[in-house]
Amino acid sequence: MNLHRTPITVPDAIEKVMHINIHKEKENISLSDTHGRVLAEDLLATHPVPPFPKSPYDGFALRSADTVNLSREDPGEFHVIETVPAGHRASRPIKEGEAIRIMTGAEIPRGADCVAMFEICGTHHKEGKDYMTLKRPMTSGQNVIEEGSETEEGVVLVSAGTLINPGVKALLATFGYNSVAVFRKPKIGVFATGTELLDVHEELAPGKIRNSNAPMIVSQIERAGGEPLYFGKLDDNFDLCYQAFTDALEDVDFLITTGGVSVGDYDLMPDIYEKLGADVLFNKVGMRPGSVTTVASFNGKLLFGLSGNPSACYVGFELFTYPVIQSFLGRTRPFHKRIEAVLGHDFEKANPFTRFVRGFVDFTGGKVHVYPTGIDKSAVVTSLASTNVLIILRGGTKGYEKGDSVEAILLDESQGQETFEIMEGSG
Amino acid sequence: MNLHRTPITVPDAIEKVMHINIHKEKENISLSDTHGRVLAEDLLATHPVPPFPKSPYDGFALRSADTVNLSREDPGEFHVIETVPAGHRASRPIKEGEAIRIMTGAEIPRGADCVAMFEICGTHHKEGKDYMTLKRPMTSGQNVIEEGSETEEGVVLVSAGTLINPGVKALLATFGYNSVAVFRKPKIGVFATGTELLDVHEELAPGKIRNSNAPMIVSQIERAGGEPLYFGKLDDNFDLCYQAFTDALEDVDFLITTGGVSVGDYDLMPDIYEKLGADVLFNKVGMRPGSVTTVASFNGKLLFGLSGNPSACYVGFELFTYPVIQSFLGRTRPFHKRIEAVLGHDFEKANPFTRFVRGFVDFTGGKVHVYPTGIDKSAVVTSLASTNVLIILRGGTKGYEKGDSVEAILLDESQGQETFEIMEGSG
Repeated sequence: MNLHRTPITVPDAIEKVMHINIHKEKENISLSDTHGRVLAEDLLATHPVPPFPKSPYDGFALRSADTVNLSREDPGEFHVIETVPAGHRASRPIKEGEAIRIMTGAEIPRGADCVAMFEICGTHHKEGKDYMTLKRPMTSGQNVIEEGSETEEGVVLVSAGTLINPGVKALLATFGYNSVAVFRKPKIGVFATGTELLDVHEELAPGKIRNSNAPMIVSQIERAGGEPLYFGKLDDNFDLCYQAFTDALEDVDFLITTGGVSVGDYDLMPDIYEKLGADVLFNKVGMRPGSVTTVASFNGKLLFGLSGNPSACYVGFELFTYPVIQSFLGRTRPFHKRIEAVLGHDFEKANPFTRFVRGFVDFTGGKVHVYPTGIDKSAVVTSLASTNVLIILRGGTKGYEKGDSVEAILLDESQGQETFEIMEGSG
Repeated sequence: MNLHRTPITVPDAIEKVMHINIHKEKENISLSDTHGRVLAEDLLATHPVPPFPKSPYDGFALRSADTVNLSREDPGEFHVIETVPAGHRASRPIKEGEAIRIMTGAEIPRGADCVAMFEICGTHHKEGKDYMTLKRPMTSGQNVIEEGSETEEGVVLVSAGTLINPGVKALLATFGYNSVAVFRKPKIGVFATGTELLDVHEELAPGKIRNSNAPMIVSQIERAGGEPLYFGKLDDNFDLCYQAFTDALEDVDFLITTGGVSVGDYDLMPDIYEKLGADVLFNKVGMRPGSVTTVASFNGKLLFGLSGNPSACYVGFELFTYPVIQSFLGRTRPFHKRIEAVLGHDFEKANPFTRFVRGFVDFTGGKVHVYPTGIDKSAVVTSLASTNVLIILRGGTKGYEKGDSVEAILLDESQGQETFEIMEGSG
């Protein structure tokens, strides 16, 4: 076992991981199952929008030529020949002196070129016929949304690689994408290793702790849009682990293990990678926490050897596994959103390595502040629960002060808000 | 039908909706199913953390009393009686002059009160026994994480009403919550109404458009953590709609309909609420879009009558339905996160009503900017696809200018990022 590993930088490590050619597969799924998936093909306007000239209001469709000389003193009278609700069509074209009553969204009848809103029209009934009166001239095209005025047919509306949110789903529906091409979700196996680990349902025992990394990772996989397969926890036994990993690799696209990647007596992962014949991309990264994070490739699959330390495990996943999942899903923006922020607390201890500090983000006053969550000893236990950013503190010879400008990786935004208030008033 | 509705303000409307006493039900689910659910009970530390004194490093546990006079010139020699990996326990207490080799996370053996890291120790083998040497004094408690030093037993670590993210899930696992109390997801029925609507798989026909609101709403329900039940689209036929809604109400907690809430000839919802005997909380809100959004309560269930206009429908859901879903799920922070921001574009048209403008958020330079997405006519079609905030523009007599300070409602943050770069360098 080589105790002297050569650390590489985080960007270099990420580049190595993202450089592995993983085998993505397209599949077609029902529109109703697309929430949170990623478009594998461009979403095109399969017809112009609107597909026909339509009315933005309830009103009377008529010929503007018939209104040229109208005024308050000299109103015009029009014979209302029909009523057309949205979804229906006038039975014949409009002729001189005629109007058709139409509803919002209805197609403009042939012959008509404008719509007078109900509010400016009078109506009356005479000799069994309906009439409307108008006291002002209309211009051609007035209150008409022309065919194709919003989008022409064939235009790319949303590019392949975009996450499908409610708005994208509405567009897919509008343009008839009943079946949608997406990349299938990666199957990601998870093992926790460590003889000290108990399952969640087990009673505490001397020297033992419950396995919290595996449920956490499974949840991180779900948040990232992957498909987790939890295979259980394993004692630090070489043959047991080797066999279990070999079996699991048959069924997954990526395999995540937690623990066993350090250089202690019971850290088996380096030897397991060697026996597997896996290509170790790196086994030491110039970062804290998670410096022993190891990633190897094997038969086009990736093995993520994350640290057994919960924070290091969490960070290792978000830095290295998350973007690979996004890439597998076909996202053109595979990395977490990076934000610039102001550090809200001193963080005094200097460190030669780049740190990824658990923190949360606050947007008060239109400024982005980030606050480390795990500063106090007692907060270490709960820090991951309130973490929604990783604050990037570059290595150096001095610490950081409140007010310093830093970067942070935005993991999620689901803090919510207790109350809803809007001050009503002048713009 | 009363054409003259009295508008109420958005905060008043939200208060009315949130004031309805909805029947929440607790259920216990497996830890593995908790991602994205909400804690219905406080998460307590069911044991101290750490549960036993443990070592933060690989090293030798020993008695600090035995090291008092050690120095480079006068090193001490200790008999290494045992090796204790994490998850195991020393077989007997340490005595004077003895040391036990322990791994990171292992329990400190009885009798020992400090840990000397491997890096500062020498080791040798003599007459069949293992020894370690140390050249400096240690203090009592050095490199020992005391039992309960991070959290005492019984402390509330995460409060009821908190969304379960990967970090919360790790805590649930740590403290043995194999079964977790949550509130069940609300079942939310969805109908689209409108004779002009086609199903997604249908070919376009004169005067018809495909139903995009229902797939969008279903996706919004999924994003909000509810359970959608899509019942289909209905023609504007009173008896048909009345029967369908009555049947559906048997099976759901809330019912969402799109369309039919305006005051046009074919807007049936007002009469349906009346025949049902539902209590209409409001049918006009002083906002744009979505002024005709109607909410009624019926037998402890809520009926959301959203506009048929896609933007109004989207906004109506996020303002009124989203917080009710969160409340049903037991969240103590049921509203979307509100942020202060700088408006990135002019928005010139004045409007007496409060507007909720589709937009997206940008965090460049540590400042929060929001940009309207639907300004251009051609952008209206795609604006909901790129929307991740609703910009709140209060009503008034003038428009808004680029640089104005505004509030926005943060809907989600899943923009991602194309590349990952960190400048390495001095702090």
